[in-house]
Amino acid sequence: MEKATFRHVVLLRFRADASEQAKQALRDGLGALPSQIPELRSYRFGDDAGLAAGNFDFAIVADLDDEQAWRTYAGHPAHQAAIEQFIRPILEERVAVQYRLD
Amino acid sequence: MEKATFRHVVLLRFRADASEQAKQALRDGLGALPSQIPELRSYRFGDDAGLAAGNFDFAIVADLDDEQAWRTYAGHPAHQAAIEQFIRPILEERVAVQYRLD
Repeated sequence: MEKATFRHVVLLRFRADASEQAKQALRDGLGALPSQIPELRSYRFGDDAGLAAGNFDFAIVADLDDEQAWRTYAGHPAHQAAIEQFIRPILEERVAVQYRLD
Repeated sequence: MEKATFRHVVLLRFRADASEQAKQALRDGLGALPSQIPELRSYRFGDDAGLAAGNFDFAIVADLDDEQAWRTYAGHPAHQAAIEQFIRPILEERVAVQYRLD
C-alpha cells in the first residue's frame, strides 16, 4: 500500500462567520471524494485540535502515486465541485505544498 | 504500523534570502529527528514541488500515536534545537494544524 510517492498538503483558515453546518458539509463533501477519485491512495483531513495558538482551522493531506495522479485529483470534477460548494464559501485563507515522498 | 492517530502538519515559507546551504541543513537536521524521537511514527518532509503558484516552500508531516506523543515531540530538546538552528534563521512564515486521524 505504501507506493504513494507524492503528497499534497493544504491548510485552511475559515472565515470567522463559517457555520458548524457549513464545516460539516465540507467534512462530508471531502469524505465522499476517495470513492470518486481512485487516485487518492490516502486522504486524511480534519479539524485543528485546538492545542496551539495561531494554527489554521483545517488540514487536508492526500497521498498519491505521482505528480500525474495529483493533477488528475486536482482537476477532477468531484474535487472541483467540493472546492466550489464547500470550501470557497467559508474560506479565509489557504496555504498548500506538494512534495515528493522519498 | 498504522496505529498513529494524531497528525502534525507544518508548512513553511522561507525568507527570500534563504541559501540552498541553509535549506540543506534544515533537511539534514529534520532527517536526524526520527532516530532521536521515537514518538515519531512517520516523519515525512520535503520541498514544494513547484507545481502550483502561491504555495509555501516546505512541508513537514509527523504522525504520532496521540496528543501526548505530539507534546513530547514538540518539546523534545532535539526538535527545539532544530527549530532554533535550522528553521528560525530562514523562516518567513509558518502555518500549522494538528488533527486527529479517525
